[in-house]
Amino acid sequence: MSAIRVPIVEKIFDANDQIAHQNKQLMAQNHVYAINIMASPGAGKTSFILQTIKHLQSEFKIGVIEGDTAAVTIDADKVAAAGMPAVQINTGGECHLDASMISNALPQLPLDELDLVIVENVGNLICPAAFDLGTTINLLVASVPEGDDKPYKYPNIYRGLNVLVINKTDLKPYVQFDMDYFTRGVQLLNPGLTTFPVSCRTGEGIAPWIEWLKAEILASRQG
Amino acid sequence: MSAIRVPIVEKIFDANDQIAHQNKQLMAQNHVYAINIMASPGAGKTSFILQTIKHLQSEFKIGVIEGDTAAVTIDADKVAAAGMPAVQINTGGECHLDASMISNALPQLPLDELDLVIVENVGNLICPAAFDLGTTINLLVASVPEGDDKPYKYPNIYRGLNVLVINKTDLKPYVQFDMDYFTRGVQLLNPGLTTFPVSCRTGEGIAPWIEWLKAEILASRQG
Repeated sequence: MSAIRVPIVEKIFDANDQIAHQNKQLMAQNHVYAINIMASPGAGKTSFILQTIKHLQSEFKIGVIEGDTAAVTIDADKVAAAGMPAVQINTGGECHLDASMISNALPQLPLDELDLVIVENVGNLICPAAFDLGTTINLLVASVPEGDDKPYKYPNIYRGLNVLVINKTDLKPYVQFDMDYFTRGVQLLNPGLTTFPVSCRTGEGIAPWIEWLKAEILASRQG
Repeated sequence: MSAIRVPIVEKIFDANDQIAHQNKQLMAQNHVYAINIMASPGAGKTSFILQTIKHLQSEFKIGVIEGDTAAVTIDADKVAAAGMPAVQINTGGECHLDASMISNALPQLPLDELDLVIVENVGNLICPAAFDLGTTINLLVASVPEGDDKPYKYPNIYRGLNVLVINKTDLKPYVQFDMDYFTRGVQLLNPGLTTFPVSCRTGEGIAPWIEWLKAEILASRQG
């Protein structure tokens, strides 16, 4: 597939970057901080988003864009149940979100009223890494039961991150996960990467992430 | 991306199916049973392959094709350590194996001496579903900590399966996983799908899978 795809993919990446830049400008004009949340299937993106909403909603107005490969509303329903404006993107089987999908979704959110937009990407450690969405930061939710070798096996997604969340730390006693080995892999690809070990189930480790994000949102307004 | 990709993707799928058919013929000529093992990252494909090898190697000769998106040999090394002939395919960032990659890998295995070829696909619940490799069966390793909503969110991969393995059942006491909800989703997409709940860590549930596979390999020779 590679040989045939190359010239087209380059054009698409150019076009994607241009639209990502427009998304970034639109959100900057509206003083919106935006997070692109990536993960493999079942690492806990939605639980992490719900924890983040729970801790921030008294201080900030939050909108959510939910990316799914199929016409299911499981995640969007959970976010809507938390009282947040949510837009769902059904990629129709596509394996990632791209900037154009975000560009179509943003006008459906009340951007001028929002402080934070959280984008839940499609569950996939490979394809989403190649598509800038124009968000302020790229964040990966890794999870302990996935195993400690993921940075070595899926290096591209780790290279493009601003924040790494290591979820399901409550399962550490029950699985083989060598945190030193995992961290060495991450450091090779993305030295000094801001990292938060958390358990979305127990709430452990969520507080430092919330403090960091609050400070980021406030700093971005002054920037 | 969809609009531009459609005609090319159709041609690629045609070409892929033709090569998959050739792969299937080549393996049939050599009386080789072949399994395409798919899963999301960290569901336990390699552990499942190692368990399968351990229980079958006294009776059958087994070769392994390892698909990785990066130039790491973590899985191939584990398989080689188990004494099996292994070929690694580095997809160079591509998100799935295709029939052409398998066609290039097969001549590197001593097919005429083998009974079983196990293909470990790239860790991804979306893209591998679209590419027939020409194996005898398609198998998915799901895992309990991924959550019970995966059939609903990633329906395409479940539709194309011959066998479903539900791994990490030893973690059930520590995570929210409603087996009835999961199974209902699977049955909607693929009624009567042959399913094996296992724990590759403890070995629980491996025996029925091994018995089933043995019978399949023997039946395929008489077929």
